[in-house]
Amino acid sequence: MAHIKLPEGFPGIRGPLMFSPATAKPLRELAEILMRGPNTLSPAEREIIGTYVSSQNDCYYCQTCHGSTAAHLLDMNFQLIDEIKRDFEKAAISEKLKALLVIAGKVQQSGKLVTSEDIARARQHGATDMEIHDTVLIAASFCLFNRYVDGLGTWAPSDPEVYRAIGEMTAKEGYLRPGGEKQIGQENS
Amino acid sequence: MAHIKLPEGFPGIRGPLMFSPATAKPLRELAEILMRGPNTLSPAEREIIGTYVSSQNDCYYCQTCHGSTAAHLLDMNFQLIDEIKRDFEKAAISEKLKALLVIAGKVQQSGKLVTSEDIARARQHGATDMEIHDTVLIAASFCLFNRYVDGLGTWAPSDPEVYRAIGEMTAKEGYLRPGGEKQIGQENS
Repeated sequence: MAHIKLPEGFPGIRGPLMFSPATAKPLRELAEILMRGPNTLSPAEREIIGTYVSSQNDCYYCQTCHGSTAAHLLDMNFQLIDEIKRDFEKAAISEKLKALLVIAGKVQQSGKLVTSEDIARARQHGATDMEIHDTVLIAASFCLFNRYVDGLGTWAPSDPEVYRAIGEMTAKEGYLRPGGEKQIGQENS
Repeated sequence: MAHIKLPEGFPGIRGPLMFSPATAKPLRELAEILMRGPNTLSPAEREIIGTYVSSQNDCYYCQTCHGSTAAHLLDMNFQLIDEIKRDFEKAAISEKLKALLVIAGKVQQSGKLVTSEDIARARQHGATDMEIHDTVLIAASFCLFNRYVDGLGTWAPSDPEVYRAIGEMTAKEGYLRPGGEKQIGQENS
């Protein structure tokens, strides 16, 4: 049961977003710009960064939703997402994305851990200032989202099909979709 | 030196906000609504929560700016801010705010650490669902802001007068002020 009375039938971050529409507006806009706005990092790469940070924060709802979104953006390659969460250095992703995931993993713990060597590695593989900026801000933003979800004790569906549906919808429609608050999964509230 | 090329003369979060106006817009709106919007927690109480989380994240720029903002909202009581950062349980603040700071301190580490006992203590001292929600979201948001500031290696002014000026301006004008990007402090860039 959540720590506060949230609207029923809305898992994860959806409950708090419904509970507080005034703060939901800039949070949704931030997610849309960061994850879907014009960017040389693909939406799939950005979803991978969010998924990895959520897994390091042990947020089940976020890592499963965003992992599913990334997989839907990558021809349903759920196996790659599992490999990245397990050990991204060995996964079949670009050297640039690996270097950005190092930075994201440091930011997840503390911004202070990012070193000039981490930045140099990313640049060596072609990362631009804007890509480094966006990686830091995506990682920092998922540290917000994960804490919002878990700090209020929200519920997470157990049915994998629910996450497939969320991932498919988010891959197609992003974060400002008008029907974004429809009820999804009701096995627990 | 910052990890990426940021506009010169803008310390802390100001550099990244100038660098990326598209993401700055929802970040500023989130801060304004959370810290200044209609709320039964006073702006000073909300700034104290942000200051405490920033101090736990060891973010010098954020804890000093927001500590100064809180002090300006509290008749210049800088001593109280120092006491709260050192040991808020012994500070001259309400029992409700102490209970909310316990929750904020848990969220700073991981949302999963918040217990039903923490929530019960806050309720016992009169905290509402909305106040608990806002405390969790303020704490989570400062986990974003602190990581954004430190993850990009931004510079922080060393002159205490600069933080007094920032605190005074933020206390008076909030987070959407039109002149918010004017240069402050130039002793380092």
